[in-house]
Amino acid sequence: MTLDELRTLATDTLRAAGLAYDHAEAVAETMVAGERDGCASHGIYRLLVAVNSIRAGVVVTDAVPVVTSPRTGLVRVDGGGGFAQLAFARGLPVLLDTARSHGIAALALNNVVHFAALWPEVEALTEQGLVAIAVTPSHAWVAPAGGTRPVFGTNPIAFGWPRPGREPFVFDFATSAVARGEIELHRRAGKPVPDDWGYDADGQATTDAEKVLAGAMRTFGGHKGSALAAMVELLAGPLIGDLTSAGSIAADRNRGGSPIGGELVIAIDPAGFLGDAVSEHLARAEAMFAAIEEQGARLPSSRRYEARRRSLAYGVEIPAALHADIMALGERA
Amino acid sequence: MTLDELRTLATDTLRAAGLAYDHAEAVAETMVAGERDGCASHGIYRLLVAVNSIRAGVVVTDAVPVVTSPRTGLVRVDGGGGFAQLAFARGLPVLLDTARSHGIAALALNNVVHFAALWPEVEALTEQGLVAIAVTPSHAWVAPAGGTRPVFGTNPIAFGWPRPGREPFVFDFATSAVARGEIELHRRAGKPVPDDWGYDADGQATTDAEKVLAGAMRTFGGHKGSALAAMVELLAGPLIGDLTSAGSIAADRNRGGSPIGGELVIAIDPAGFLGDAVSEHLARAEAMFAAIEEQGARLPSSRRYEARRRSLAYGVEIPAALHADIMALGERA
Repeated sequence: MTLDELRTLATDTLRAAGLAYDHAEAVAETMVAGERDGCASHGIYRLLVAVNSIRAGVVVTDAVPVVTSPRTGLVRVDGGGGFAQLAFARGLPVLLDTARSHGIAALALNNVVHFAALWPEVEALTEQGLVAIAVTPSHAWVAPAGGTRPVFGTNPIAFGWPRPGREPFVFDFATSAVARGEIELHRRAGKPVPDDWGYDADGQATTDAEKVLAGAMRTFGGHKGSALAAMVELLAGPLIGDLTSAGSIAADRNRGGSPIGGELVIAIDPAGFLGDAVSEHLARAEAMFAAIEEQGARLPSSRRYEARRRSLAYGVEIPAALHADIMALGERA
Repeated sequence: MTLDELRTLATDTLRAAGLAYDHAEAVAETMVAGERDGCASHGIYRLLVAVNSIRAGVVVTDAVPVVTSPRTGLVRVDGGGGFAQLAFARGLPVLLDTARSHGIAALALNNVVHFAALWPEVEALTEQGLVAIAVTPSHAWVAPAGGTRPVFGTNPIAFGWPRPGREPFVFDFATSAVARGEIELHRRAGKPVPDDWGYDADGQATTDAEKVLAGAMRTFGGHKGSALAAMVELLAGPLIGDLTSAGSIAADRNRGGSPIGGELVIAIDPAGFLGDAVSEHLARAEAMFAAIEEQGARLPSSRRYEARRRSLAYGVEIPAALHADIMALGERA
């Protein structure tokens, strides 16, 4: 399929499930970006997840995001219980203006439903020449280091750095040891997981994927990853007056919906500190990237950018079973 | 020794080594805080490191920090080649004002010498009720994930969150697998290091501490820690027009001095997004901390705060050999 065909399929499916047109467009765009970049788990497959959240009543399908500026350096979008994508799209131009005026700015998305990765959001800022950090909690599935019961979500951290004339330096990773979807795949395949991925509900290490899903996942990187997971909870939860991961999973009331809550995006304009010397100092960053790649190490997102080039040239292949599942969604609606 | 006695010893020693009085006071305060909190490696032992940097000519001993505001949300302190402590002290009140006015602000310290941890700086912000993130590069000692040659420094990330009526939630950790001092201790003791701490100069994994020190350390947490190390380089290097870790070690010219360069501190005022509801949402953060501690997991810095309470009550014990080394510094000056 071409990306345009994919976009139409995604938009139509979301519309048929009852999502308002502006939301459907914004959500479809994110799913197409995921599929384009070879992130199957954040691609068009997420239509099933999004439609499930819609049908479970977790999402306000016609929410109108409201943008305010509580302080000169802060932007807030109340997403009204809708998907995060449109809220971000509405806040983005205000965040850009604010960051350029003051050198640094923060955007809080409140009261939104999350099903996607954070890299589309940091990339949107790097495309405008800004540096970006984004964090969001999820559902409480992850134990703190030294504990065995869930407190944190998978709590991703994303970062973007603009690279003139090429794809930005972007990373976006969960602070959990692995993505939850990875454990889900092991469960479906009936395969054991390594014994350091998580705990069962009694707090014992286990290789049973199902038991980890019902118990708690671990953070990556021991106490350091656990500290970062706590930081994400605080920044995109209490700091912006929104749910923690524990609050999100409680609010879901076992409907199996996507995480609900907030997201914090910090944007910094390189011209703020650098003035006329932006290109000189961005070139020094390029020297660092070269020092990494020269020794055969890869930059984060490099596989994603390779997939993007292929997809833009040749389109994407959607597994027949997934396509059938998506068509079935449409018929049921 | 009481903390006052320790402060006098540190100040006098730094003065005798030629450091201007205001710098000596600021640097001594940081060392006393380290010793007080049981961080021996960042305590009064650092007098030896600081005096070494002074005698090696790496530090401008009478630098006058210059504070400017390049944008309404940005504060810059040019440290003039002096120690970071006085530059931070001069920038702190301006950063506080700026963060409170705009909701978020960033402070760049430029052209300073670093020998200390970052937690004193984030704690200074939490004491004023702000949330803080601080990052700084160091010397290029650490290989990116997938590589074996040094690009990054030990590149610490520190975070602070205010907790009314008690010590703040603070973490401060290197993005390297271990602290460099840890490898140094193994070298001195003639003990092997685990084979996943670093590489020799030929890029081979090794258990020889001396070879790791001459080769490259690893990042913590695989590619995720490596991505964070790159973020630290970018934020506190090119973004603020200052040295990367590679630039710092090159500028040292084998003098064995402390890292030279920049530091970025981001401060966020919780009242910005929360208005009158700050205490309500800080209480929600406390609920998260309780959920961590209830299962026997420790919060970061908890050992440090226990040591602090002991030190404030009973003073600190300085090893006789270290005390003799410090007195010898004074005599030589």
